[in-house]
Amino acid sequence: MIVDLAFSRRDPVCRSASGRAVAVVDVIRATTTIATALHHGCAGVVPVLTLKEARGLARVLGADALLAGERGAAKAAGFELGNSPAEYGRERVEGKVIVLTTTNGTRAFRAVEHAHALIAAGFLNVSAAARWLGRADRDLLIVCAGKHGRFCLEDAVAAGMLVDQLLDLCARPVELSDAAVAARQLFSVNRHDLLGMLRGCEWGKEIVRRGFEADLAICAQVNAIDVVPVMREGRLIAEHA
Amino acid sequence: MIVDLAFSRRDPVCRSASGRAVAVVDVIRATTTIATALHHGCAGVVPVLTLKEARGLARVLGADALLAGERGAAKAAGFELGNSPAEYGRERVEGKVIVLTTTNGTRAFRAVEHAHALIAAGFLNVSAAARWLGRADRDLLIVCAGKHGRFCLEDAVAAGMLVDQLLDLCARPVELSDAAVAARQLFSVNRHDLLGMLRGCEWGKEIVRRGFEADLAICAQVNAIDVVPVMREGRLIAEHA
Repeated sequence: MIVDLAFSRRDPVCRSASGRAVAVVDVIRATTTIATALHHGCAGVVPVLTLKEARGLARVLGADALLAGERGAAKAAGFELGNSPAEYGRERVEGKVIVLTTTNGTRAFRAVEHAHALIAAGFLNVSAAARWLGRADRDLLIVCAGKHGRFCLEDAVAAGMLVDQLLDLCARPVELSDAAVAARQLFSVNRHDLLGMLRGCEWGKEIVRRGFEADLAICAQVNAIDVVPVMREGRLIAEHA
Repeated sequence: MIVDLAFSRRDPVCRSASGRAVAVVDVIRATTTIATALHHGCAGVVPVLTLKEARGLARVLGADALLAGERGAAKAAGFELGNSPAEYGRERVEGKVIVLTTTNGTRAFRAVEHAHALIAAGFLNVSAAARWLGRADRDLLIVCAGKHGRFCLEDAVAAGMLVDQLLDLCARPVELSDAAVAARQLFSVNRHDLLGMLRGCEWGKEIVRRGFEADLAICAQVNAIDVVPVMREGRLIAEHA
């Protein structure tokens, strides 16, 4: 089994996702938020690129839908939910379909929508995600959402933790790409202070400046939930692994 | 001073090189070879993209020029030199202008040709490169050549060593991007066995398979020379720092 890794959705390897099982990682905050919502019983999360697309789809879905997303970290104007995982409690999301647009995370899903299988991963569901991927019986690709097509430390470290867990799980030989090796090394350097890493990285500092510091503690939780968001017919639904 | 870093020439930040001093890193092997050639008295290295462009320019330059480059690691057909630093001894290159085309390194130079200043760096001239950049009095960008627009471990580690040396040198406050922080962390993990890292990375293994294992020992040498290849009017010439 080959484990490859893209440090941003612009990596050329994302165009070769078709035969692989792919995990998208956007720790601060899209994949953390998606996993939290599904853990709390939401019926599915539909990632879409634009505010207009989100409004249109939410209108079609009617009362069952929640319109969610951010621009510049803040809740989009007129939307019901932003991109803070804390907003996605059971009382708010249970039974609902969430139409979600974020700046980087939803673009990463779109970049690999042709994947054989597609899941969302973060620190808070990393072991469940590793188990799911280990059973996929496919070559794997882990895609860091990054920021505006660039490298983000937090996604690289979380992706590296996923690589690390895959190596622990897999009985078969695993071949790592350079990027997968590097991500695992970055996890090894930062593993003992994930919250400090989130507070010190570029986007983490920006999130704090914009008033969302409390989100970082949620994003740093390891294996708080065991839900794997899996893409089925355009929406991410909850599976267990 | 801001130190940013691109893990490949496809990073969007390469389009913003114009105000910055930029170092291109292609450890295996272009920047190692270029620094070696200039150390041995070559009059200049002109990086060009295509075999055709290389042949045309060498023809115009006449007897003073050497036609050099690789495709698939091997010397290009009809060329006088390949991309092995061992080929670039003083007896061969002194006083000559080398027209060089390689698969990734020369493309990286092209991607940032609009930089305020542009140099080449590898392990073998890392301290000289750091001193040169430290004096540039500009925000810095370190560009890993990578491979076909993708991440390469060896370039990331060498770039991280350059970041590390810059931090040691600079009296002024230095702000590192996430990518610069990560590269420095990757250097910290691999610093005690650079040759092992070169032998174990994807492109290093490929270079060994293709018969160029001896090159890796040259590429792994730290500070063997103190020449900085600096781009002046389209050619890299030797400066000392």
